[in-house]
Amino acid sequence: MLRTRLDTARIRAARRIIDPVFLDTPLYRCAALEPDLGCAVSIKLETANPVRSFKARGTELVASRLADGGPSAVVCASAGNLGQALAWSGGRRGIDVTVVATRHATVAKLDRIRALGATLELVDGDHELARDRAAAIAQQRGIRLLEDSLDIETCEGAGTIGLELVDSAPAVDIVLIALGGGALATGVGHVLKEQAPHVEVLCVQPLGAPAMTRSWHLRRVVTTESTNTIADGVAGRRPIPAVLDDLLLVADDAILVREASIIRGMRMLLDQAGLVAEPSAALGNAAILENPDRFAGRHVVTIVCGSNVDMAAYHRWVDPDQR
Amino acid sequence: MLRTRLDTARIRAARRIIDPVFLDTPLYRCAALEPDLGCAVSIKLETANPVRSFKARGTELVASRLADGGPSAVVCASAGNLGQALAWSGGRRGIDVTVVATRHATVAKLDRIRALGATLELVDGDHELARDRAAAIAQQRGIRLLEDSLDIETCEGAGTIGLELVDSAPAVDIVLIALGGGALATGVGHVLKEQAPHVEVLCVQPLGAPAMTRSWHLRRVVTTESTNTIADGVAGRRPIPAVLDDLLLVADDAILVREASIIRGMRMLLDQAGLVAEPSAALGNAAILENPDRFAGRHVVTIVCGSNVDMAAYHRWVDPDQR
Repeated sequence: MLRTRLDTARIRAARRIIDPVFLDTPLYRCAALEPDLGCAVSIKLETANPVRSFKARGTELVASRLADGGPSAVVCASAGNLGQALAWSGGRRGIDVTVVATRHATVAKLDRIRALGATLELVDGDHELARDRAAAIAQQRGIRLLEDSLDIETCEGAGTIGLELVDSAPAVDIVLIALGGGALATGVGHVLKEQAPHVEVLCVQPLGAPAMTRSWHLRRVVTTESTNTIADGVAGRRPIPAVLDDLLLVADDAILVREASIIRGMRMLLDQAGLVAEPSAALGNAAILENPDRFAGRHVVTIVCGSNVDMAAYHRWVDPDQR
Repeated sequence: MLRTRLDTARIRAARRIIDPVFLDTPLYRCAALEPDLGCAVSIKLETANPVRSFKARGTELVASRLADGGPSAVVCASAGNLGQALAWSGGRRGIDVTVVATRHATVAKLDRIRALGATLELVDGDHELARDRAAAIAQQRGIRLLEDSLDIETCEGAGTIGLELVDSAPAVDIVLIALGGGALATGVGHVLKEQAPHVEVLCVQPLGAPAMTRSWHLRRVVTTESTNTIADGVAGRRPIPAVLDDLLLVADDAILVREASIIRGMRMLLDQAGLVAEPSAALGNAAILENPDRFAGRHVVTIVCGSNVDMAAYHRWVDPDQR
C-alpha cells in the first residue's frame, strides 16, 4: 500500500517557521460570484503578500533550514512564482539564490526575481529544460537544488493552507486546487483528507498542460511532448513519480479545463470579486463554469494561488473591449 | 481642552464582537511599488472580505448591539460601502436594513446593497441629501439612524485597524488614511496616537471634496457648496463638528490631492501590486506621488480601504490604451 511522504505534525510545526505575513490568509464567502457560478463560493486568497503567491510558505521552510546551517546557496527552476518566493525567503537570510527560468516566462515574474536580488538564468526552451539546467547548476556548484513538488518543504509549506481551511471545513463541500507539479494539491489535499475527510479534493489543470491529470487517472506517470496554455504556473510536462503517488492518496478527482474558461474565470474574479488572478489562480472558477451540475448547491472553496501577470496580457484577457 | 469620544478599551473589546472575517487583514511590504514612490511602502488591505471595504468593522458593532435588543430596524445614508456593510451585518442578524443613497452612486455598490437584502432608497442630489433623507426616515419610522463617523461604532470599528497596525508600528513612520466623514481617520488615528505616538497620522482627501481637510486646518467646520471627485467614498460637504474635534486631536496633517494623482495611484496599485482599489483607496498613493520629498526614505503604510468600483469606469482609469 502506498504511504504518503507528507506529515501533518511537521506541517503544524511549519507554521512556527514560516513568516506570519504568509499565514492565515483571507478566507471568505464571495456572494457576488455565486449567481454566475450556481454554488456557494469562498475564496482562499494567497496573493496579498510580498510575493503575490502561496509559494513562500514552502520557500520559508527551505531557506530557514539552509540558514541554520550557515552561509549557503540554493538553485531552483521556476515558472516565476517559486523563484520569487525563494528570492524573498533566501534574500532576507543571506542565502545566495539562483533561479533558472525559461526565456518565455511571464516578464513581471522575472523582473521581480531580479529585483529581489536573486541571480536569474534564462534558458531557451520550456520549464522542463529549466529543471534540467537547475539540476546541472546544483551539481556543478555543489549547492542545494530546490525541486518544486519533489522537495517535501514545498508540499508541506502548501499544506499549511490546508490547516487554515480545516477550521472552516465543516461548512465546505469541495476544495478546488490548481494542479501543476502537485505541491499545492498534495499539501492541501493531505491535510484535508486527514482532518476533514468529507471534503472533496478536486484538482484542476488546463487541457493544454494535462500531464499530471492524465497520470492521476491512469495511476502512472504520463508525460507530454509540449504544453499550450496561458496558465504558465502549472505548465509542466514531466510529473514526478513520488508526487503522483502522494496525489493518488488524496485527490478525489482531477479535471481539465479549456483556455477560454480560464480567461472567463479571471474576468469574473476581477469584475465580481475585485481580485487580480493569474491564469493558474482562475482554474477553480473555470472548473465550476464548465461543470455547473457538479457544483450546484454545494459550498466550494477555490484557492486564488497567485496574481503575478504581465499587465499587457492581463488587459487583453479581462478588458471588455477585447471580448 | 478637547477630549476624544473614542476609547481604546472599547476598541479592544470590539475585536470580540466583529466577525473575524473582517479582522487581522493583510499587512505587508510591497516592494514593487517602492521604485516609483521613493519610500518604503506597506499595504494594509481592507478589501479581501465579503463587502470589499473596511466598513463592516463598524457595522458589526452596530448590528450586534441592535440584535441584542430583539427585532429591530436601522437606516443609514451611504455612498455605498457603509450600506453594503450594514446590509451584510444586519442581514445575517435578522435586522431590517434600509440604505439611502444618491442616484449617482457607484452602480456596483447599489447592486450589492440590494443583493444583500437591504431596502435601497435613491435620492436625487448628493450624499448630504441622502443623509437628510435617512434622518427623516429614522424619525418617521422610529428606528435607529446610523450616522457614519458621528456614531461612535463606525469610528471605533475602524479603530480596530489601528490596533492591528500598532503591532508593526515600531517600524512604521507614517500611516496614510483616506479622509471623508472621518470615521477611519479618527478611529485609526486615536489608537496610533495613544499606542504609537511616534507614528505620523496623515489624512488625505481629494481637492474636489476638501471640506474636512479645510475644517481641520482652520480648526472649525467649513462646508462646501459641491463636490467634484471620482472618490465617491469620501465626497462629503458638511463635516460633523464632533468628528472634527476628534480629528484635531489625532491627525498630524491633512492634505489634498488631484484627481489625476488618484487615477495614477489606482493604476499603480493594479500594475505593480495586483490590487484593485477604488478611488478613495488610492488617496494614499496619490499623496506620495504629489509629495515625494515628504516621504523619501520613510516607511509608509497606506490603507487600501475599499475596492468597489464600476468596472466600465475602472477600465477607463487603468487601461493603458486610455492613458
